[in-house]
Amino acid sequence: MSAATSPSPHVGSRPGGRSARVRAAVHRAVQDLLTDETGELPTIPVVAARAGVHATTVYRRWGDVGELLADVATSRFSGDIVVPDTGTLRGDLVRYACDLAKDLADPDTLTLVRATVGIGGGHGVAACRGEHQRQLEAILERERVRGGRPPSLERTTDAVLAPLYYRAVFTNEPLAPECARNLVTLLLADWSPGLRRRPVDGGN
Amino acid sequence: MSAATSPSPHVGSRPGGRSARVRAAVHRAVQDLLTDETGELPTIPVVAARAGVHATTVYRRWGDVGELLADVATSRFSGDIVVPDTGTLRGDLVRYACDLAKDLADPDTLTLVRATVGIGGGHGVAACRGEHQRQLEAILERERVRGGRPPSLERTTDAVLAPLYYRAVFTNEPLAPECARNLVTLLLADWSPGLRRRPVDGGN
Repeated sequence: MSAATSPSPHVGSRPGGRSARVRAAVHRAVQDLLTDETGELPTIPVVAARAGVHATTVYRRWGDVGELLADVATSRFSGDIVVPDTGTLRGDLVRYACDLAKDLADPDTLTLVRATVGIGGGHGVAACRGEHQRQLEAILERERVRGGRPPSLERTTDAVLAPLYYRAVFTNEPLAPECARNLVTLLLADWSPGLRRRPVDGGN
Repeated sequence: MSAATSPSPHVGSRPGGRSARVRAAVHRAVQDLLTDETGELPTIPVVAARAGVHATTVYRRWGDVGELLADVATSRFSGDIVVPDTGTLRGDLVRYACDLAKDLADPDTLTLVRATVGIGGGHGVAACRGEHQRQLEAILERERVRGGRPPSLERTTDAVLAPLYYRAVFTNEPLAPECARNLVTLLLADWSPGLRRRPVDGGN
């Protein structure tokens, strides 16, 4: 019931102070443990030991390992750069899809996404998809400002984001840039009846 | 190094015998622990205690918790019924997509899929998607036997399976049957240029 007094006025406040260092060390420990491939799950005591901090510090700050993983995922994905304006919706989407495919093809990222989905619960999955969904929204809004009528966010998510995530998370197939480009072509061919349609995958 | 001798000739051989009972009890314990929502991860000792078997039995049979989850997922999804022949590719795919959406909307199934993705590694994700992918393949093959030219398995997976999995696993939005039906409509409209095209989601 008694409020804990901070051992130092800097804790939890000064950027680059002890609090930030603890967060960085704990995040790094989680990433290291996930990529160790020991097959063991990262638990709070194991993460704390690896990070060189007290387990109670980790429990107090994150509560459980699910919240901790969601925080690592948020921090990992919020650093992603906004897709530059290529001048066209197609160009922006291709760039976005290729960047996402490349990102998800990184084994460390994929391990983090899978672990966060499995252990991070609702917060975890929101942390994984949140930034990618916001970037897509920004691309579609940019097209509207240009005077275009892009497909809805829902349709674009189904056609581009979902297949890339599905392939990365549920298969072990490599995510080639051609695959990402192809998904955008299919979306826009489907959306703009004026565009020339061509078969993109084989029926025979 | 010495080979363990079976305590009974029935172990591991007789269907419905001790081995089958152990497997059923351990599988049930995993499912119970996952749906308990304690936020704690199922570990082998915890699963064994819940199932009322020795932890060494579980370690010997499954090795680690990832393999165990993959086995539970395989058993859960291999029970799925083959989609009945509705007479058309569209009918078969709509039935398939609606069944899958309903399946993934079940909280227990979703919890198992998420945990298996997070903890089960490569075997786990293969266990989750394997049966669904095989069903889709059977539907496309059926259409070929009818003399039709269905889209490829890859295209159908991207257009139907991936969005349903993405929505289920990465969002908390409900999976409505209309959504499943819509995905099939878009796939077939895209695939058969002869079909009447209609806008399916809003651009304004």
